Amino acid sequence: MLTHEKNALLTQCGPGTPMGQLMRSFWIPAMTAAEVPPADEPPVRLTLLGERLVVFRDSEGRVGVLEENCPHRGASLFFGRNEEGGIRCVYHGWKFDVDGHCLHMPTEPATSRMCQNVKARAYPARLAGAVLWVYMGDAKPVPELPAFGFMDQPDAHLYASRWHQECNYAQAMEGELDSAHVGFLHQMVNQTDPDHQALTGKYFQEDTAPEWKILPGMAGFMACNGRRVDGDKRYWRLNQFLLPFFTMIPPRPGDAQLVRMWVPMTDERCWVICVSWRPDAPLNEAELAAWRNGENSHRKVIPGTTTPVERLDNDYLIDRQEQKTISFTGIKGIRAQDAMVTETAGPIADRTREHLGTSDMAVVAMRRTLMEGASQCAATGQPHPAAANPWLYAVRAVQTVLPQEQDVATADDFLAPARGTPPAAPRATETA
Amino acid sequence: MLTHEKNALLTQCGPGTPMGQLMRSFWIPAMTAAEVPPADEPPVRLTLLGERLVVFRDSEGRVGVLEENCPHRGASLFFGRNEEGGIRCVYHGWKFDVDGHCLHMPTEPATSRMCQNVKARAYPARLAGAVLWVYMGDAKPVPELPAFGFMDQPDAHLYASRWHQECNYAQAMEGELDSAHVGFLHQMVNQTDPDHQALTGKYFQEDTAPEWKILPGMAGFMACNGRRVDGDKRYWRLNQFLLPFFTMIPPRPGDAQLVRMWVPMTDERCWVICVSWRPDAPLNEAELAAWRNGENSHRKVIPGTTTPVERLDNDYLIDRQEQKTISFTGIKGIRAQDAMVTETAGPIADRTREHLGTSDMAVVAMRRTLMEGASQCAATGQPHPAAANPWLYAVRAVQTVLPQEQDVATADDFLAPARGTPPAAPRATETA
Amino acid sequence: MLTHEKNALLTQCGPGTPMGQLMRSFWIPAMTAAEVPPADEPPVRLTLLGERLVVFRDSEGRVGVLEENCPHRGASLFFGRNEEGGIRCVYHGWKFDVDGHCLHMPTEPATSRMCQNVKARAYPARLAGAVLWVYMGDAKPVPELPAFGFMDQPDAHLYASRWHQECNYAQAMEGELDSAHVGFLHQMVNQTDPDHQALTGKYFQEDTAPEWKILPGMAGFMACNGRRVDGDKRYWRLNQFLLPFFTMIPPRPGDAQLVRMWVPMTDERCWVICVSWRPDAPLNEAELAAWRNGENSHRKVIPGTTTPVERLDNDYLIDRQEQKTISFTGIKGIRAQDAMVTETAGPIADRTREHLGTSDMAVVAMRRTLMEGASQCAATGQPHPAAANPWLYAVRAVQTVLPQEQDVATADDFLAPARGTPPAAPRATETA
Repeated sequence: MLTHEKNALLTQCGPGTPMGQLMRSFWIPAMTAAEVPPADEPPVRLTLLGERLVVFRDSEGRVGVLEENCPHRGASLFFGRNEEGGIRCVYHGWKFDVDGHCLHMPTEPATSRMCQNVKARAYPARLAGAVLWVYMGDAKPVPELPAFGFMDQPDAHLYASRWHQECNYAQAMEGELDSAHVGFLHQMVNQTDPDHQALTGKYFQEDTAPEWKILPGMAGFMACNGRRVDGDKRYWRLNQFLLPFFTMIPPRPGDAQLVRMWVPMTDERCWVICVSWRPDAPLNEAELAAWRNGENSHRKVIPGTTTPVERLDNDYLIDRQEQKTISFTGIKGIRAQDAMVTETAGPIADRTREHLGTSDMAVVAMRRTLMEGASQCAATGQPHPAAANPWLYAVRAVQTVLPQEQDVATADDFLAPARGTPPAAPRATETA
Repeated sequence: MLTHEKNALLTQCGPGTPMGQLMRSFWIPAMTAAEVPPADEPPVRLTLLGERLVVFRDSEGRVGVLEENCPHRGASLFFGRNEEGGIRCVYHGWKFDVDGHCLHMPTEPATSRMCQNVKARAYPARLAGAVLWVYMGDAKPVPELPAFGFMDQPDAHLYASRWHQECNYAQAMEGELDSAHVGFLHQMVNQTDPDHQALTGKYFQEDTAPEWKILPGMAGFMACNGRRVDGDKRYWRLNQFLLPFFTMIPPRPGDAQLVRMWVPMTDERCWVICVSWRPDAPLNEAELAAWRNGENSHRKVIPGTTTPVERLDNDYLIDRQEQKTISFTGIKGIRAQDAMVTETAGPIADRTREHLGTSDMAVVAMRRTLMEGASQCAATGQPHPAAANPWLYAVRAVQTVLPQEQDVATADDFLAPARGTPPAAPRATETA
Repeated sequence: MLTHEKNALLTQCGPGTPMGQLMRSFWIPAMTAAEVPPADEPPVRLTLLGERLVVFRDSEGRVGVLEENCPHRGASLFFGRNEEGGIRCVYHGWKFDVDGHCLHMPTEPATSRMCQNVKARAYPARLAGAVLWVYMGDAKPVPELPAFGFMDQPDAHLYASRWHQECNYAQAMEGELDSAHVGFLHQMVNQTDPDHQALTGKYFQEDTAPEWKILPGMAGFMACNGRRVDGDKRYWRLNQFLLPFFTMIPPRPGDAQLVRMWVPMTDERCWVICVSWRPDAPLNEAELAAWRNGENSHRKVIPGTTTPVERLDNDYLIDRQEQKTISFTGIKGIRAQDAMVTETAGPIADRTREHLGTSDMAVVAMRRTLMEGASQCAATGQPHPAAANPWLYAVRAVQTVLPQEQDVATADDFLAPARGTPPAAPRATETA
């Protein structure tokens, strides 16, 4: 349960808010690389952390992310002309490059210095790991990109998709960190059917009340949840939470790795970007086809949009007959099921009325990590230190089976890939 | 005319408002019995007095009315599974019975006491008189149901329907108590046509400015309106207003009785539930067919919904040619005509700018009765005394013709069925 | 750049605001004469300066403009019956004439004086120059209509159309006074094509940074903008701004004159009324056909509505391929292009973040003239003096070519038709 004030602290990410400041410490994933238009093609719109932007690629292929409204009198640059090194507002022909510099201001006299003095708000952008990253903070120089395992993989090893959800980012993300729900929300009605067992795993049925162990780190925490299985053993899953909104859950053996990103669009809507990847091999055609069709780790969207097919305003196309006999929800798609339980709590869940149990330990840890980070940034006026340590993101979500009495915190072999490796020489942080 | 403050007092019914507290003294009609889903079938949504609820029937046929959001983390119970004695949230499998008790909390360890301590907000519900009644107040024990004449009639004597209107309940109800409008709004253009006379009655044309006499009672008042007719006589109609939002108007001779209920959904929308009934005989096929088609006392809706066919956002399908030559409004349906004049005053009418005349005496009495009741409940913190006296609702709306000079308040034979009969032994009120 | 306070002063026009008071000094153009319904036909709705009204024509052909809501209990007079000298509310049969007097109040007793005491809010209305004018101010007697050149022209010399834009009036009007944009927004991509040159004029390409000279007058100002052309000459265009929202731009040689009117509907939406006219000849079929089709000075709307075909919520049907090879915007219609650049700045542009250049001198002058007028009206409680001097509106927008060194303010022959002629005898102003 949170007070109204803490709920606001957690959920509000616009310019000038403490959580907005924390978020702006980090590179923000904005869209998939495939959604970025080609060089000299028309810009696309993007709303991020409450700010309306346009994204384009200039003649040299550099990506520009500018405030949507022209700094002159506010006309939308979405309707601008992307040509010869920049985007030109069609109202008066003012032209801006990817850095926001004004290249041409033809309505001013030749003697005017105004062109040098007016700048469009521009954010640095990078393409890496099939994702477009945007830096909306103040640090100079800008930090390095986070060193997620997928960031330097070849294209064939990567698949990224994006959709939007009709609720605050924190609420959407809570559904991801909350391992206890897996055994319910996503289960099949007839659990003895081996196909259905395959989907959610029989371990989830053996113990519905996992034990939690939160192992904090510099950029977030590892949320270990252990279920008693096979008599005297415990099945441990280790989920990752990484500031400000990254999550990883362990894949089934043989499946691809994944990272999900829960990015505030506005305070009442968020983007979800999911990257599936294999560190050692190209993705295979079967999994690619399933993801493109919105199965498993990805969500089914109306082609050419980020709008899910099963969504809040159509009751997720629930099939009540199917709910009785086939799946627990009657809703198609693991991701749509997740969206249903988080979106129906309202655009911003009223956390003053919730009742948290032991199953919500990772949710509590996530909120605390975010709120403490936001308060720290607000107090110091500095970016969060994790932003200056990209290696903190070179970690994995993993799973294993241990003897029941073993403390997971001591299982070093298991934890090693989840902990990552600091660089050989100590790094100075950005704020030092 | 009301001040802004009094208009707010009259119209705001959410939790914590004085009018909301008054309303919560009483059993609230929520939907028709036919709209309540069968046992173990999926729940339906319902918004009442600003609260979002779900309605379902458990395996034993008991009706449950729960807050829509799960007390855990707020997922909607509309998407829940209604099975074996309760509704189960699909997020984590928490299960609640019709009283809001948690029956199962599988994500908590076996040793946890949390299941006993968490309760879903649940409201007592009863089916009676073809209507589902919900009690949203605090009184213990809950009061008896109001003893409307139709409450214990056999099914064949009853017909109930429900629709919604796009304005505050008080405004919608004002149109019902306002007898003077009948001779205008619902009239035909050619009043000499005997068919048209039959519809609204020639008495309404003989005297367009009825005299009013308000006779107050413990649960509301009788609004008598008398028109000079046939030379030296007066045609008296006696409408009933019963707290907090029940009205009765006298049927034409031979027609069925009716009760209308103007129930706040939100402050800017209301439900209308209408029960037509015959105390002594089954309803006949002709009147049932007409009502199902949205004629006379009921409203035409899009099948399977509570959305009227003729409504605000389509200008009530007004036919301007028909308005010139056939009906006064050019709008089909008595109820649609009523909705038009009340809804077009805005979601909440600005009563600071109105000009009330002698024709508005019942409207004024209704507002005063409600506002005094609300103030009294707010001052005492107690339910309204009428809620503890169900017999006050066992009354009728009646009509007669009296000599013009006779005081209607002295016409005891006429008034007897409108006054009801107190129980033999005096009852203690809930607040005593 | 304006402060938030000044932006509010400029843009808010509802009852009781300073700018609203300034506007109510003047006759407000409300719709085209062709849109006013015939005598005894149903009324139409109109929102003006934030007030919801109905417009009708009584049996004698007089135009009535009344508040939409009946003064009794607020039912909409839009659904009223327009018959025999007035409009009758269908709720209780109250009937009002074009002056708002109550002609009949049949629900009150014969002895009641209420009919004489209740008045519907009514605004004087006049038809002139193919436009319906409404006076919403307090001055008694009402001022004369502004003496625009087109006001007493025969019908065949006049064409008027109306559409709405999704932004504040001031923002929409800024696009009109802003001559510098013409050479960009409306240009063709291939400027050497003689057809394209014909459209926007080669002079606009020769000098993209016109020099400005603002010549203030009693009712507004002349905004002269001069472009260096043909070596040693200057091409001068003289646009007119006349309080509170009238603009004129000079037509191409041989083309019809025009006046545009940027009338607040609400603070976030405006009407645009455009009158094209010829002082000395009937309009020709070719230009009429083009205007009816939404070309040149007028806008293409969905027939029977004021809703543009190319509009904000459909991205103005931009054709990105056409934007590359044919027109600068890829948007069809000069007026749609203007709407795009003004509407996309938001319903009310945030003028605290703009960057004005020398090209914006007329925009600055217009804002200052309006804000000074509003402040003056608020301080004195009097109408603006220009409202009492109709001759101030008998002016033209003109253009010429002068030697480059000549001061346009000294070009008396050029300025004469733009200055207008005061009446022979001095007039007392309304406020004297």
